[in-house]
Amino acid sequence: MSGLRPRLLATTDQTFSTELDALLAWDVSTDSVVNQRAAAIIERLRTEGESALLELTHALDQVRAASVAELMLGPEDFRAAFDRIAAQEREALQTAAARIRAFHEQQKQPGWEFEDEQGNRLGQRVTPLDSVGLYVPGGQAAYPSTVLMTAIPARVAGVGTLIMVSPTPGGVVNDLVLAAAHLAGVDCAYRVGGAQAIAALAFGTAGIPKVDKIVGPGSSYVAAAKRLVYGQVGIDAIAGPSEILIIGDGSVDPDWIALDLFSQAEHDAAAQSILLTPDAGYRDAVLAAMNRAIADQPRASLIADSIANRGALILTRSVDEAVDVANRIAPEHLELAVAEPRKLLPRLRHAGAVFLGARASESLGDYVAGPSHVLPTFGTARFSSPLGVYDFEKRSSLIEISATGAEVLGRAASVLADGEGLNAHGDAARARIRGYGANQE
Amino acid sequence: MSGLRPRLLATTDQTFSTELDALLAWDVSTDSVVNQRAAAIIERLRTEGESALLELTHALDQVRAASVAELMLGPEDFRAAFDRIAAQEREALQTAAARIRAFHEQQKQPGWEFEDEQGNRLGQRVTPLDSVGLYVPGGQAAYPSTVLMTAIPARVAGVGTLIMVSPTPGGVVNDLVLAAAHLAGVDCAYRVGGAQAIAALAFGTAGIPKVDKIVGPGSSYVAAAKRLVYGQVGIDAIAGPSEILIIGDGSVDPDWIALDLFSQAEHDAAAQSILLTPDAGYRDAVLAAMNRAIADQPRASLIADSIANRGALILTRSVDEAVDVANRIAPEHLELAVAEPRKLLPRLRHAGAVFLGARASESLGDYVAGPSHVLPTFGTARFSSPLGVYDFEKRSSLIEISATGAEVLGRAASVLADGEGLNAHGDAARARIRGYGANQE
Repeated sequence: MSGLRPRLLATTDQTFSTELDALLAWDVSTDSVVNQRAAAIIERLRTEGESALLELTHALDQVRAASVAELMLGPEDFRAAFDRIAAQEREALQTAAARIRAFHEQQKQPGWEFEDEQGNRLGQRVTPLDSVGLYVPGGQAAYPSTVLMTAIPARVAGVGTLIMVSPTPGGVVNDLVLAAAHLAGVDCAYRVGGAQAIAALAFGTAGIPKVDKIVGPGSSYVAAAKRLVYGQVGIDAIAGPSEILIIGDGSVDPDWIALDLFSQAEHDAAAQSILLTPDAGYRDAVLAAMNRAIADQPRASLIADSIANRGALILTRSVDEAVDVANRIAPEHLELAVAEPRKLLPRLRHAGAVFLGARASESLGDYVAGPSHVLPTFGTARFSSPLGVYDFEKRSSLIEISATGAEVLGRAASVLADGEGLNAHGDAARARIRGYGANQE
Repeated sequence: MSGLRPRLLATTDQTFSTELDALLAWDVSTDSVVNQRAAAIIERLRTEGESALLELTHALDQVRAASVAELMLGPEDFRAAFDRIAAQEREALQTAAARIRAFHEQQKQPGWEFEDEQGNRLGQRVTPLDSVGLYVPGGQAAYPSTVLMTAIPARVAGVGTLIMVSPTPGGVVNDLVLAAAHLAGVDCAYRVGGAQAIAALAFGTAGIPKVDKIVGPGSSYVAAAKRLVYGQVGIDAIAGPSEILIIGDGSVDPDWIALDLFSQAEHDAAAQSILLTPDAGYRDAVLAAMNRAIADQPRASLIADSIANRGALILTRSVDEAVDVANRIAPEHLELAVAEPRKLLPRLRHAGAVFLGARASESLGDYVAGPSHVLPTFGTARFSSPLGVYDFEKRSSLIEISATGAEVLGRAASVLADGEGLNAHGDAARARIRGYGANQE
């Protein structure tokens, strides 16, 4: 029997750095084709409006509708779905929703204001977005958990209107997705998807209102469309394939590690599952566990593809060196499957979510731990954050100037304005220095 | 004499809504040309590396160098420039730097962690970015203030390495820009600009290290290049032309308002300056003041162009209605030139920076008030924020699970995983329910 075929690397290999780059590389050569198609779809939506949306939905999802109104679902539909699903599913969704809400309540940021020594008042106001579109993948990958993980942070932020779009290929509506929309408080949903749904949310159509920001994961067309409409609306991120990186010191059951690697691999053939360990025996034990566990997996062939395409078991010189490699990778999910995970935290620089210790499986984070499972992928944890309440808020600076401030700051500002050759800026500052008494009081 | 020609609109006009849309519209028809050129430059940099950067810098900026090292400036160059500039410029920069630092210290966000009723520990870690590139426009629009307004928030966040790029057309280096880099603590600067500088920062070259995020304003090529490299690196925003919106109730000297409108108009012919007032007499007084003040302005012709192209004086039914219009515009800069500005705040939804009252001229905010002058333009204040410390930090979720948590959460997670058809996720959760005692303790 052939068994699973992750790459077996070691940091002591002469070629390790190149091999790691190759392992992490994500083929973007199709990007320009996907981009062009997404751009063409967006242009069609902008010029033709709703009829283009209906035609594309018919052509791509085999869903025929005479108007967008026919594709709309509202709170009563969400409620009905919630009532239809199994009791244990209702309870599990409720548990997840309550925990996600509790975690995100901690992220709310108050505005603030202070008075400086000149009597100027400076501050920052924090306000929620007026309206947000949630993209929820449909079909094969219809994830109710994603509804909770995107909509609840938005609701905690206080977003005015929450619109969900989710394709229903072949007309199949997923009750769990609607039940999650019920619990999360989504205002309405449209059964559309792909670049056409992104364009509809960004520019609005007769039946779909324009939103201020679009969040949520999707296909490469969705990702390309989000990039193209960015600026017209806000977006959360451009999602790549999902990844897990596990640092193991040998203290956690290899069977658990095997299942955690599979949790990522079962998502898609481009997903990435990597183990870093200084213990060759442990690495072998994990590989043996993987080869045992694969037999029980309904998605065995997808897992095998994903592991062969992008999986790796990497031998490091030490656990500390494993942390260095993790910092280089900046993984979406990082499991510290070690006896003392908190000891590694100070040296850890980049990760979307960190799972500490044996019991913190990524799957708990995916569903019920509380933090959003929408996380920065493909190394973007170097500069971006998990989806959170902050993605649904924006700040405004507040500037109020005292009479003393107008004098003191006016002098400094006019010097700098003159230095930049911006005379009107200088004049506006100077007018407040000499003018206030004469003109205003 | 013809005088300045802002559009004169009124919200009572039947066609007001259409006219407002036309006023706010920003011609993006050249976008695809600019985009293609920017994409070609990025591709050249990726394939040819540094030689392409040197050739483009020679061709576009008339600066010839045999290596990037020749284009590099370091702390000693910044220091020398700081020593060369006039004493009053040094002082003004110091005043600005200290105030910008004090304001941004307030934005630092600590991480947090809490333990839930099951003994799980959940939290959010906040860490600074490792390296950031600052784009600073050169030539005509070389703004030392922009160096302070971008670099200081980055330094307050704790960013590791701060690299500045700024073109020096014709080889002219701006001492004020370098002096600002000295005060802000920039690590080094390269005399390159345009899409080629953005590509160099995003992908690295032999001489320029790759950064994690690129911030700062720039030309349409810079904006296009930032959009194209987004995902490879983080970016702050895609900047459009600058705008000011003033709500006036008639209580502030029309001469001051005229200068504030000019402060924006003098930036560029596409800048937008708008006054909203319910008082027709006041509107006329402001227009008269503008026509008087224009004579003294060295940039009179640019101001006249900008006012004619995109300026407007808009009569509203009331100050409250002016706030409604402001919310629709979501301006970069909003001056509340009214007697009681705080009374308007609760109804105000979107603005990059709000200037409260007669003395708070935009020019004070541009230089010395404290908040960054890098603000969301072109209506993006609906969903984005002023540049701040938060742009130079990222968050990681922390998840640690107790024995009770593994049980309780494992059951809920496995139900949801099964509902999504993700068996390995369910198995990983289930393994922790039944397995922990046997395997780990």
